[in-house]
Amino acid sequence: MCQPPAVGLSITLSVLAESADASAALVIPSSAVGSHTDIGAVRAFASECDVVTFDHEHVPAEVLAALEADGVILHPSREALVFAQDKLAMRRRLTEIGIACPAWAQVRDAASLQAFGDEVGWPVIVKTPRGYDGKGVRVVGSPDEVADWLSDVARDSAAYAAAASDELLGDELLGDELLGGGPLAAGLLAEEKVDFVRELAMLVVRSPSGQAGAWPVVETVQTGGICTQVLAPAPGLDPELSAVATAAGLRIAGELGVTGVMAVEMFEVRDPQTGNPAYLVNELAMRPHNSGHWTIDGAVTSQFEQHLRAVLDLPLGDTSPRAPWTVMGNVLGGDHPQLYPTYRHLLARDPGLKIHLYGKGVRPGRTIGHVNVSGSDLDDLRARASHASDFLQGVITE
Amino acid sequence: MCQPPAVGLSITLSVLAESADASAALVIPSSAVGSHTDIGAVRAFASECDVVTFDHEHVPAEVLAALEADGVILHPSREALVFAQDKLAMRRRLTEIGIACPAWAQVRDAASLQAFGDEVGWPVIVKTPRGYDGKGVRVVGSPDEVADWLSDVARDSAAYAAAASDELLGDELLGDELLGGGPLAAGLLAEEKVDFVRELAMLVVRSPSGQAGAWPVVETVQTGGICTQVLAPAPGLDPELSAVATAAGLRIAGELGVTGVMAVEMFEVRDPQTGNPAYLVNELAMRPHNSGHWTIDGAVTSQFEQHLRAVLDLPLGDTSPRAPWTVMGNVLGGDHPQLYPTYRHLLARDPGLKIHLYGKGVRPGRTIGHVNVSGSDLDDLRARASHASDFLQGVITE
Repeated sequence: MCQPPAVGLSITLSVLAESADASAALVIPSSAVGSHTDIGAVRAFASECDVVTFDHEHVPAEVLAALEADGVILHPSREALVFAQDKLAMRRRLTEIGIACPAWAQVRDAASLQAFGDEVGWPVIVKTPRGYDGKGVRVVGSPDEVADWLSDVARDSAAYAAAASDELLGDELLGDELLGGGPLAAGLLAEEKVDFVRELAMLVVRSPSGQAGAWPVVETVQTGGICTQVLAPAPGLDPELSAVATAAGLRIAGELGVTGVMAVEMFEVRDPQTGNPAYLVNELAMRPHNSGHWTIDGAVTSQFEQHLRAVLDLPLGDTSPRAPWTVMGNVLGGDHPQLYPTYRHLLARDPGLKIHLYGKGVRPGRTIGHVNVSGSDLDDLRARASHASDFLQGVITE
Repeated sequence: MCQPPAVGLSITLSVLAESADASAALVIPSSAVGSHTDIGAVRAFASECDVVTFDHEHVPAEVLAALEADGVILHPSREALVFAQDKLAMRRRLTEIGIACPAWAQVRDAASLQAFGDEVGWPVIVKTPRGYDGKGVRVVGSPDEVADWLSDVARDSAAYAAAASDELLGDELLGDELLGGGPLAAGLLAEEKVDFVRELAMLVVRSPSGQAGAWPVVETVQTGGICTQVLAPAPGLDPELSAVATAAGLRIAGELGVTGVMAVEMFEVRDPQTGNPAYLVNELAMRPHNSGHWTIDGAVTSQFEQHLRAVLDLPLGDTSPRAPWTVMGNVLGGDHPQLYPTYRHLLARDPGLKIHLYGKGVRPGRTIGHVNVSGSDLDDLRARASHASDFLQGVITE
């Protein structure tokens, strides 16, 4: 999705794609095929680039370190990216700089998890800091429900301690994988289960020169744990909370040295003392993010154009909305193996709908595209986006 | 410029490019290199495509005929495209269907040109029907000023008559090149020099199924014979003239069997009888056109997305403007061999400016890009677009 603005800005993109038929490789002439975990492939690719950026956070720390050693310019840098890769590092850093987060603890054993849960109330959320076997979050009512993870923590901690016996465990969150301890050497992240009003997201951008910008705070509507719609801006958002959340997003970007676009996923809560609207930061993503897809059609400068401008240290663009409301609807793979007939129908039904398909194969539950609709009647826009998403997925048939 | 919407619509483009570093080849993975005049190259390329369309009108009739014989689907078709290729065919057909045009005549000798000029008043405009040595328009005060062209007309007419002695000259406007007469076998087009108020353009689209649409009529501001700005919609346009011009554009598309986007360049004039605003059609272009570049940022559906929808016979998109005004400013090559420093400056000066560069080498006078600005203050938008164009060209230096 960076290719369209790159065309206009006359920026030549190259992509290291996982396969020749990957979505990005289909639309970017200068594509190499290789794995982001293959140091040789990534170094060879990066040697041809002026600047390297990322469309996910899973590039291993040792690959990033090798690129930095080669003098490759990375945006975001390895130092910043770790806070999107490692949830314990993120929680610690955000807490240090005074950003509101859910109550949290770094736990390495059942006793510390029990103590945390007894303090904040059960159930609690337990997360593996770096994702783990594709699943890294559980809602648990007791330490028994993460006994398998705690056992791996013990194993990785021991391996780490053996490799670095004179270091204190827990002070090397950035280097745990490099040091051979394994992904759970630093333990698990336990968080209170937040009683939130709704979920918000804040999209900010920062350039290497330090220019920064923010789009309006949006609401991310979740259905069954999946973001189905984004409402831009967040309807009825308290202006004070909007200002505070925006300031928090910009502060995170500056303090963490983020370069490029960053999405800050937040919970809207009520302050337990005052009852006023407040935020708690849930997750960070240092790249263009699903919660910002509305900007492609709904803002003067899209998150993809802005990310390109930022990582190339070009002046940033205007983040103003183009319409009073824009609704983004995610399209999940469903019952239609062939999208074309439904897609034709939708184009005919709603000439104002902007459809963005990703050129991916259709698999149930996989995000295969999104739609944007802009205008002044939010209820109408939500209905149109819902219809389009449901129809493309096969949930409805007319 | 079709590549960005193709990415979103999941349409795979291929381009037959004149060289590997042509603008389109730089951004479209599936590119072949070859000349549009090379029948073999074009046939081989077309055999891999579902639909073939054009970004200029210069594909020779014999190449189009060969593609049709191969069963290739062409949009626009050869039958429609001839009216954009051959100005005599265009004038005759428009006159037949009642579209207002400047007074015109098909002339084959000095006497007929003299008679036409004496009737409508000198000077008159003389055009070669199909372009000729790169220059095909002259403003002349007497037949002597096109004596060279008239001599070629005599030569080509004689060659045509020898090849098809039982046919009447002039009834074979479509086939003159095929029949071996040469490009001027049908003579020249003479037109009155119109005393116009301003120049307008009308952008329409029509699909093979017959669905059609139109964007608002725009003003094309000319400076020294070059279009420097497009104002969308045309400021202060009489609503009646807007409706009549739009109806004319749609009627031309339908009657000529146009598929895809068509630009109708018009003069705004005063009706000599009533003094009311009226139009005269100047030129047709059957493709996305410079006068429609404002739609990339200024309309819900851009001319490039719409052209793709139309030639694939997909339902057409909403042509509504996204803002009260959009101003497009052409960027001409000038004194800056390297655009990058000026481009950086402009991005910083005007974060709301949308810059579209074409990846072409900078040559004085060559169109190398355009800028769009949208908003509610037309004077401000015009000033911003002028500054950007002039600064990129080097006319001003700050």
